[in-house]
Amino acid sequence: MRLNLAFLGFGNVGRSVARLMIDQSPALRRDYGIEWALTGIATRRSGWVADARGIDGESALVGPGWNAGAEKHPDAATWLAAAKADVMFEMSSLDTSAGEPALSNMCVALERGIHVVTANKGPIVFGYQKLRDLAASHNVSLRFESTVMDGAPIFSLFRQSLPLVRIERFEGILNSTSNMIIGEIEQGSTMVDAIARAQALGLAETDPAADVDGFDAAVKVAALVIVLMGTPIELAKIERQGIRDLNAADIRAARSAGTPYKLLCRAWRTEEGIHATVGPEKVDASSPFAQVNGTSSIVHFSTNMLPGLSIVEHEPTPLTTAYGMLVDFIDITRSMARS
Amino acid sequence: MRLNLAFLGFGNVGRSVARLMIDQSPALRRDYGIEWALTGIATRRSGWVADARGIDGESALVGPGWNAGAEKHPDAATWLAAAKADVMFEMSSLDTSAGEPALSNMCVALERGIHVVTANKGPIVFGYQKLRDLAASHNVSLRFESTVMDGAPIFSLFRQSLPLVRIERFEGILNSTSNMIIGEIEQGSTMVDAIARAQALGLAETDPAADVDGFDAAVKVAALVIVLMGTPIELAKIERQGIRDLNAADIRAARSAGTPYKLLCRAWRTEEGIHATVGPEKVDASSPFAQVNGTSSIVHFSTNMLPGLSIVEHEPTPLTTAYGMLVDFIDITRSMARS
Repeated sequence: MRLNLAFLGFGNVGRSVARLMIDQSPALRRDYGIEWALTGIATRRSGWVADARGIDGESALVGPGWNAGAEKHPDAATWLAAAKADVMFEMSSLDTSAGEPALSNMCVALERGIHVVTANKGPIVFGYQKLRDLAASHNVSLRFESTVMDGAPIFSLFRQSLPLVRIERFEGILNSTSNMIIGEIEQGSTMVDAIARAQALGLAETDPAADVDGFDAAVKVAALVIVLMGTPIELAKIERQGIRDLNAADIRAARSAGTPYKLLCRAWRTEEGIHATVGPEKVDASSPFAQVNGTSSIVHFSTNMLPGLSIVEHEPTPLTTAYGMLVDFIDITRSMARS
Repeated sequence: MRLNLAFLGFGNVGRSVARLMIDQSPALRRDYGIEWALTGIATRRSGWVADARGIDGESALVGPGWNAGAEKHPDAATWLAAAKADVMFEMSSLDTSAGEPALSNMCVALERGIHVVTANKGPIVFGYQKLRDLAASHNVSLRFESTVMDGAPIFSLFRQSLPLVRIERFEGILNSTSNMIIGEIEQGSTMVDAIARAQALGLAETDPAADVDGFDAAVKVAALVIVLMGTPIELAKIERQGIRDLNAADIRAARSAGTPYKLLCRAWRTEEGIHATVGPEKVDASSPFAQVNGTSSIVHFSTNMLPGLSIVEHEPTPLTTAYGMLVDFIDITRSMARS
């Protein structure tokens, strides 16, 4: 099958996905019979660029000038139509207030019978049910593996490998930037310097609030609760505390005592519904969480079928997030082949 | 769809599967449209018992007397025919010399167009390629999730959630009996008493060699190498050392020093093919392996796409293995619905 892809966003993630897709083209053709063409790229700077004959991915990666003379469109709807898109890859940045404009753009795609793969948590947290229902009614797929723990398989694991499972609770370390900052402080850095270093590495945003105030972690908790526990939860209902107010001396003392601070995410069922928290905690040296350092992450699920199952992702690279989106794309083509 | 199931083996695993299937019948009907009947049970004591009208699972669980007056058959082929079996659940005990008679019985089933779910590592290690080819040529499925780490999703994870991945190496703690015995010795037990306790808990066999000499671990390593790394490996080629010759004082001293002994399984690619080892090692306190105690297990994969991915299964119960087989069964019905 031959599919046209439209990339909404062409920053670090978009470029990594393009690089990976180009490199894996022979394998996609050989193992899955998939041919693809990049027919749309939209960015803040270049606007809504589409060319249904195909945009050369290598040139776009080298940029600038790749879009000289290309058609530009006023909005997502005309852009997707001009690109004759079969699948939209949504890779814009996180908005923790409403998941916009990503959410609206994804609705536009799904309503037009275009499959959507996203690495953006916002739309999942603010519009999962709407998106899911739209996808179902238009007989297309919505996939979002890379929204939590990069490309490590979490959503696909439950969707495909763990039928009949009911998650009773989960806990994890899901914001790697906070974890890295704590690690830098343990080694002598100040909070300010550690944040600057995370920014220099491209981990933290210019405004580090999403990480150090626990927003990113809370959004991931919400995504897991909504999708895997099947229960709507408002972001504001998650008890949230970040690492901003931790004292550097306390962080170092905790590490020396063998009980390092970690920004822990938790959710569990109660009689009143699901209770969820994000906050720094000292973890015991014997806890598997104590060994999760740097940009690694972990999530532990307690379920009715498996008493305990943990997934640990070690030191992801930009490729890891891109790989999660490629897996989503392959899974969509499998669904298409079946229907 | 309505499916007849034949159980080859009705010991701890077989009974747990029957219990779970009965309990999950309403959910299977509601969520997957699956109706099932138990139409064959074969055990060493009762012989090849079949009744295509259905055997009452609850009575069989209560036993004895469930098979009074039931038809008995001379071998697997006539038994499967009399049971009009659609799926055979193979749950006999491990034979580390040739995987028999399980391997032959599974061939008999597959050749007759009967799907096979097994919890038995032997046939996978000694006959994977033959079984896989037989299944393909008869258009049926072979599933074996519960052969490694009980019901934790390992094989299905790679089959369904990790396309295009090439495993470069893996390491893990895969024999929970050895791990539990080491833990007992750390707490003051002797090797002999610890083995006796593992036997009393139903973890170790009457002949504990499979566990304490590392055979069980080596068979699991072989299964992962053969299936997930796509490379045949002979059991005899795996460097194997068990925990039998470890000294209790050394075990306790290592734990006190924060570097406990673990029976580690490893496999990695070399220019001459895959090298695989099983043996006791002292692990660093900062290793995630140091925190895997009791009957828990862990496997860590290094791959071309995800730098590191670990799966940890915590304190499995008999239900865990049964759940793995139920997942395999549901997955088979999904394939049937598609074909």
